Amino acid sequence: MRQKFTMALDAMGGDEAPDHVIDGAVLALRNHPELSYIFTGDEARIKPLIDARPSLRKKSEIRHTEEMVLPDDKPSAALRHRKNSSMSLAVQAVADGDAACVVSAGNTGALMAMALFGLKPLPNVSRPAIASFYPTMKKGRKTVLLDLGANIQCTAKNLTEFAVLGAIFAQVVLKVERPQIALLNVGSEEMKGSEEVKEAAHMLAEMPLPGEFVGYAEGDDIMKGVVDVVVTDGFTGNVTLKASEGTARLVAHMMKQAFKHSPIGWLGYPFMLPALRKLKHSMDPRRYNGGVFMGLRGLCVKSHGGMDALGFANAVGVGAKMIAGDMNKHLAAALEKTGDADMPAAENGVEKAS
Amino acid sequence: MRQKFTMALDAMGGDEAPDHVIDGAVLALRNHPELSYIFTGDEARIKPLIDARPSLRKKSEIRHTEEMVLPDDKPSAALRHRKNSSMSLAVQAVADGDAACVVSAGNTGALMAMALFGLKPLPNVSRPAIASFYPTMKKGRKTVLLDLGANIQCTAKNLTEFAVLGAIFAQVVLKVERPQIALLNVGSEEMKGSEEVKEAAHMLAEMPLPGEFVGYAEGDDIMKGVVDVVVTDGFTGNVTLKASEGTARLVAHMMKQAFKHSPIGWLGYPFMLPALRKLKHSMDPRRYNGGVFMGLRGLCVKSHGGMDALGFANAVGVGAKMIAGDMNKHLAAALEKTGDADMPAAENGVEKAS
Repeated sequence: MRQKFTMALDAMGGDEAPDHVIDGAVLALRNHPELSYIFTGDEARIKPLIDARPSLRKKSEIRHTEEMVLPDDKPSAALRHRKNSSMSLAVQAVADGDAACVVSAGNTGALMAMALFGLKPLPNVSRPAIASFYPTMKKGRKTVLLDLGANIQCTAKNLTEFAVLGAIFAQVVLKVERPQIALLNVGSEEMKGSEEVKEAAHMLAEMPLPGEFVGYAEGDDIMKGVVDVVVTDGFTGNVTLKASEGTARLVAHMMKQAFKHSPIGWLGYPFMLPALRKLKHSMDPRRYNGGVFMGLRGLCVKSHGGMDALGFANAVGVGAKMIAGDMNKHLAAALEKTGDADMPAAENGVEKAS
Repeated sequence: MRQKFTMALDAMGGDEAPDHVIDGAVLALRNHPELSYIFTGDEARIKPLIDARPSLRKKSEIRHTEEMVLPDDKPSAALRHRKNSSMSLAVQAVADGDAACVVSAGNTGALMAMALFGLKPLPNVSRPAIASFYPTMKKGRKTVLLDLGANIQCTAKNLTEFAVLGAIFAQVVLKVERPQIALLNVGSEEMKGSEEVKEAAHMLAEMPLPGEFVGYAEGDDIMKGVVDVVVTDGFTGNVTLKASEGTARLVAHMMKQAFKHSPIGWLGYPFMLPALRKLKHSMDPRRYNGGVFMGLRGLCVKSHGGMDALGFANAVGVGAKMIAGDMNKHLAAALEKTGDADMPAAENGVEKAS
């Protein structure tokens, strides 16, 4: 690896690329001056933007390509036909050891396919997962949720691996020393959970974990901040994440409607302004931008495609924290322990060799 | 059936029983003067409450029992050991044809077990489901979501039946003539959905439905009001519902925090009051109280256990609308059509005979 803190940024991914990517890279340098960048994409469009930003000039390299992954490219097609795309070159920079982490705001499915193919899973990881973290009602606590959509159907063993991935993420990025981990489940006692979830609970209770397995959590426990890590399959995780986003938008919409139809509401508006600003900040999705593909041999962050420069900078920041905390080293160590513990010796040997 | 609009109310279910049940019954009469009630539970506690409320006196019958289902009774244990409980007697009143609908705010699992055992599924229903409806961003549109937790793992056929149940609910209770129906799924094109979801989509596209199948919906589409009915398995539905409730509470909490720490915010408060009241009304969970157990030969509504009288009254109101709209007649007719269409004749005959 040439430079420890080099990040590969797909300059052409996202709704407002390359502008938001370049501006986001500038913003990220404020909190992480140790970073330098490899930008992949159309040099004719990227170079003028970099040249105009003094803080970037000495910290940037461009890898030119005019090929791009399109928003509606199917993952398998992107993998086959976009080998020279900005996204692919960025992933390749990590695979080659030139950068420690790739960040892209492009097509999620394509990025997942390219990262999986280009970076390969870590030993003892059968399925990588997408993780992110969310605000909660408990002061200072953020909750990691995974998988957010990489794996539609999961075995109990997949879920136990996600628990390890999520706990290490909480340790390295959120600085929680001994994360509390729960499996997402439904409420009613007797009918609790699918066979996979029940089996995963038994396995987690016996495994050596980089945290503490505390049992089941229900959907609303994520926002209550009851635990640090909530583990589920990619179908449930994806639907849960989107339903939460949808609900937050619905409440904001209802708020707007209520004030719009209140004839004297505007009289109070100037007094409320500081509080409304604070509320907007608390709920700002840009602060929670950055879905991490966990369990690969290289680090990979997906920024939301609709994010502005600040949102993209936060996704870069998540990557910077993972690099600084040497996440994959911790992950490999934790996975080796659990890998040893939960598998018969022979099978374990085979898995490790692969 | 003795009286068409008689409802059986479990007077002992819920946190503040029997008071909230009795007061809720009074409130429900304002919108539904056609109703009369059978209250099941401890006569010594119920009778004085009824006697003190003139509007109830002539419309109420009490079926006395001192036995109750406890909040932590397991469903199977409740079914075996609480045969003379207020919940069981209320279900029995519907099974015997003395009442058209049962409403209980007691233990969900126990009510589901008792209703399933006591009322039996309708012909062509292999698995009953729990449905409820939610506010959306689209003016005037509410969206029905099911299953909310009755069936943890579902086959494609189960999901297609839920689509019929949900569509009839939308027709009868929400008065949507031709409901649009979608299957809940994840976003990314290629990896879309489990095998069950994909198969259900194929089946729904070919089936005669009391509405229009429009394809897939994502988690946030529920709140956007993109369709009238969203169909999913009970695991995903339960987690989605609770995550949405949790998110709404989180946003309300953040709002409170923001205003609490705004030193001049209180100056604007009097002006904002009408808008805040309107917002509170829009978000009031009591307005969306009442999970309906659909697909049984009798009608059954579960009220949230923590609801006050108004919340309970709304659950009674949902039941009243189902009775008035003759829901099970419509349901049986719709299920017969789809049952004929999607099954080989022999198997169909067997199902119908059961």
